[in-house]
Amino acid sequence: MEKKTLLTHCSDAPGLISKITNICYKHQLNIIHNNEFVDYVSGHFFMRTELEGYFNDHTFLADLDHALPQGAKRTLVDSTRKRIVILVTKEAHCLGDILMKTYDGSLDVEIAAVIGNYDTLQGLTEKFDIPYHYVSHEGLSREEHEAEMLKVIDSYQADYLVLAKYMRVLTPDFVARYQHKIINIHHSFLPAFIGAKPYQQAYDRGVKIIGATAHFVTNDLDEGPIIKQDVIPVDHTFAAADMAQAGRDVEKNVLSKALSKVINDHVFVQGNKTVIL
Amino acid sequence: MEKKTLLTHCSDAPGLISKITNICYKHQLNIIHNNEFVDYVSGHFFMRTELEGYFNDHTFLADLDHALPQGAKRTLVDSTRKRIVILVTKEAHCLGDILMKTYDGSLDVEIAAVIGNYDTLQGLTEKFDIPYHYVSHEGLSREEHEAEMLKVIDSYQADYLVLAKYMRVLTPDFVARYQHKIINIHHSFLPAFIGAKPYQQAYDRGVKIIGATAHFVTNDLDEGPIIKQDVIPVDHTFAAADMAQAGRDVEKNVLSKALSKVINDHVFVQGNKTVIL
Amino acid sequence: MEKKTLLTHCSDAPGLISKITNICYKHQLNIIHNNEFVDYVSGHFFMRTELEGYFNDHTFLADLDHALPQGAKRTLVDSTRKRIVILVTKEAHCLGDILMKTYDGSLDVEIAAVIGNYDTLQGLTEKFDIPYHYVSHEGLSREEHEAEMLKVIDSYQADYLVLAKYMRVLTPDFVARYQHKIINIHHSFLPAFIGAKPYQQAYDRGVKIIGATAHFVTNDLDEGPIIKQDVIPVDHTFAAADMAQAGRDVEKNVLSKALSKVINDHVFVQGNKTVIL
Amino acid sequence: MEKKTLLTHCSDAPGLISKITNICYKHQLNIIHNNEFVDYVSGHFFMRTELEGYFNDHTFLADLDHALPQGAKRTLVDSTRKRIVILVTKEAHCLGDILMKTYDGSLDVEIAAVIGNYDTLQGLTEKFDIPYHYVSHEGLSREEHEAEMLKVIDSYQADYLVLAKYMRVLTPDFVARYQHKIINIHHSFLPAFIGAKPYQQAYDRGVKIIGATAHFVTNDLDEGPIIKQDVIPVDHTFAAADMAQAGRDVEKNVLSKALSKVINDHVFVQGNKTVIL
Repeated sequence: MEKKTLLTHCSDAPGLISKITNICYKHQLNIIHNNEFVDYVSGHFFMRTELEGYFNDHTFLADLDHALPQGAKRTLVDSTRKRIVILVTKEAHCLGDILMKTYDGSLDVEIAAVIGNYDTLQGLTEKFDIPYHYVSHEGLSREEHEAEMLKVIDSYQADYLVLAKYMRVLTPDFVARYQHKIINIHHSFLPAFIGAKPYQQAYDRGVKIIGATAHFVTNDLDEGPIIKQDVIPVDHTFAAADMAQAGRDVEKNVLSKALSKVINDHVFVQGNKTVIL
Repeated sequence: MEKKTLLTHCSDAPGLISKITNICYKHQLNIIHNNEFVDYVSGHFFMRTELEGYFNDHTFLADLDHALPQGAKRTLVDSTRKRIVILVTKEAHCLGDILMKTYDGSLDVEIAAVIGNYDTLQGLTEKFDIPYHYVSHEGLSREEHEAEMLKVIDSYQADYLVLAKYMRVLTPDFVARYQHKIINIHHSFLPAFIGAKPYQQAYDRGVKIIGATAHFVTNDLDEGPIIKQDVIPVDHTFAAADMAQAGRDVEKNVLSKALSKVINDHVFVQGNKTVIL
Repeated sequence: MEKKTLLTHCSDAPGLISKITNICYKHQLNIIHNNEFVDYVSGHFFMRTELEGYFNDHTFLADLDHALPQGAKRTLVDSTRKRIVILVTKEAHCLGDILMKTYDGSLDVEIAAVIGNYDTLQGLTEKFDIPYHYVSHEGLSREEHEAEMLKVIDSYQADYLVLAKYMRVLTPDFVARYQHKIINIHHSFLPAFIGAKPYQQAYDRGVKIIGATAHFVTNDLDEGPIIKQDVIPVDHTFAAADMAQAGRDVEKNVLSKALSKVINDHVFVQGNKTVIL
Repeated sequence: MEKKTLLTHCSDAPGLISKITNICYKHQLNIIHNNEFVDYVSGHFFMRTELEGYFNDHTFLADLDHALPQGAKRTLVDSTRKRIVILVTKEAHCLGDILMKTYDGSLDVEIAAVIGNYDTLQGLTEKFDIPYHYVSHEGLSREEHEAEMLKVIDSYQADYLVLAKYMRVLTPDFVARYQHKIINIHHSFLPAFIGAKPYQQAYDRGVKIIGATAHFVTNDLDEGPIIKQDVIPVDHTFAAADMAQAGRDVEKNVLSKALSKVINDHVFVQGNKTVIL
């Protein structure tokens, strides 16, 4: 017996749950967990179905395609561990958290490689026997640097790229290549404090809460679909640097939780939003 | 067109989602929201289905009974507002919160009456034009007092009884009469600090968090199925009285949230636990 | 014996705590609680000292003035309950929460009056035997309306004005008259979603958390010193109206907590920020 | 100029803040941060004062001893990084978190060594170039095993021992040797679910929140002074194993936060409670 997850995303129509579960039943696939959501504003239907049984992918998907509305997207994901490539600059906390959670088993992912535009985190990465590629941006145009990065990234055939405090803005070409496959952690509670130095902005504004946002990267900087957000309270005793220090804990927790949702196939993207089932 | 909610609770079996949603589809009932859960430990299946359409309750339920495993419980709940009777002693905060949330529309319930073993809260209740019954326990045995209470309670034919800081223990006879229909707020994070004076106990133990628990009442004091719990941080500056004051906010929020889940038909009881869909 | 609170705000200088506590000791005033904070960025010193004893305000303050740096602000606040006037429009939840918390004793304040630019909340207010003034803005310029409001407000000599979902923007003249005395609840986690329809904005952006902000009102709309913020998680199932409904709970909790800090003399304002001791 | 922290713990008496801060002022020691607390129930005074200046420890402490009530405990702690020894069994998450936070600088501590009664975590420890001692308990009495452990522990002269999921109960002799110097993480929200298998207990009880507790170890198992607690929500979908997995995140966060408070000299112990300034 195998376990696979069926992800269905289509226009809403009467009887969709019935049709999809009928096909599962007909194929003697047992439904372990099922979640669905209808967005009545946009008229979209989303369903995530964990199945167990003997799969004949070809006929199963053909039956589904016959039953679902035109334009439906349906994916049958097997339970192979996802592969990620992590991009970093100098800060250790987000990378360290993913490395440690992967090591202790709380994050079920394969870290294929880490790529940094500095060599600061090479030592940490290699402690865990993971290849580190130092691809400096010095003396290179943005396009040249990305071309160097992509040579390395593409060689790993990763399912997702994780920007674990990678501090350079990506070009539209780069982003287009990995649409909805690049997860970033932004060090603010978006859409507050978009852009650089959010902790300084938060300090200047005198906020009583700071946060972090994990989102898919799109060409609109800091505007991609949000996957996860969380916050912590701060007060007048926090200087900007204290906020940044306190924020690190939130950043890494938010990134890890978002990553966990993505690699376990819980996240649908619709327009500029996510549906998490 | 009407809206109704179908609640299904039965032994797990292959194809249940498919069978139930088929019957909905056949009856041209549109599924607005659907949630299901299988408890693989106990082998129980739970499903909550919000439906919209023209209902023929009789044939719809007959079709379901035919399809579901023996012993299945299924209920088709119409969207009539639930009626509650609230039992109180002297403390205003939980009663006040339910009165105000009902007034401002954030809690969609009909408060049929409030009954108190003191008259302390009569004034507050009557501000909202709700009948208050003062049923003193003085000079009565527990059984006699409950008999007096039940005369009043039964006259209102309430769907649920809410113990909003009602400080007397109910007899097994009373509880049996309203099985899984009595919601209590306990002023601790159960199972910590079971029994009387939980805030004094919490102070003595030096805990850093206090909480509250809303649960269905059973004959095992403080042991009924938990519906909702929440906590707030405290520290060394909190005397026992400060903990009690801080705890009031949690108590009323937890009770209101639990009540909201119950009256909107989200809560299943299985053994000593709840499943909330 | 009396209880009073000394609030000191001045430039930082060596030995301030020693000097102030010496004077308290010399006057045989017992320190019940003491908190101080030095903002090393701006060089400001803040101290809040709860005192108990027999006060000779005149000589005590004279001693302090002699010891403190030039330009120091020090206030000796007696324990009289503060008076507030509440301004409302149509929404009941924030007003209702303050009314109920005042009734049940968890908020120790005197509500002198409620003023609304609609009569929607007159019934609710009068349940609690508090005068309600309906001052419609219809047919009046902003200035004329405020003049009408101020006639009523000024007659009550309130310590603070509370905007409990009062949906009109105040003029600079009005604000200047009650500097750092007007507390507003903004229905977003400022500085995100400044301005109108924040819940619609939050929905459109697909955020996973929504919040509320209580702040002092200044002439820069939504930019005054923040007193308290809090948030709750939301997800893809929340339409804009659901977010607004969920947000009401946060709004009223944040406003009540901010109000409690202000009326108990915990809040200092420095520039565009608060220091809460 | 140096920075030191003065910790004062004594019976409450009039003028203590004044006396202590006077002595600081006289010695030209600048107060960077100051916090004090009076426990009016027990009549104890606690004060934590961060000082900056040129210290003459001897005369400064002599002046303090002269001014403070008899039996006062006062300690002047210099800013040397604290040394800890970590005890583990097989689970990696708490050890991993402390290793990583020490590596990335968010925890300012020196890990002198890790000692395990299994060799499971030797590889992880040695990645970070920290000595690992495998001291098996097999074939040894509890006393013999502890004697072996103590040989290693004592050789490191640690300030604190951290039980990072060390799953053996310590003898009174061991505990007495490191009074208020042993920090344990308990995998429940104490005092709920004391003892073994708390997640199974939590599952059986159907709680909606689980937590973790960091506390000093005393001879009363799970009854020592609590330093930090935190919780996370769970629901009916969590099997006991899911609760344990979810609980790991809370466990490690609570342990790290408690450790941070302890090593930065914020924690006083009084009776069975902590005061955290």
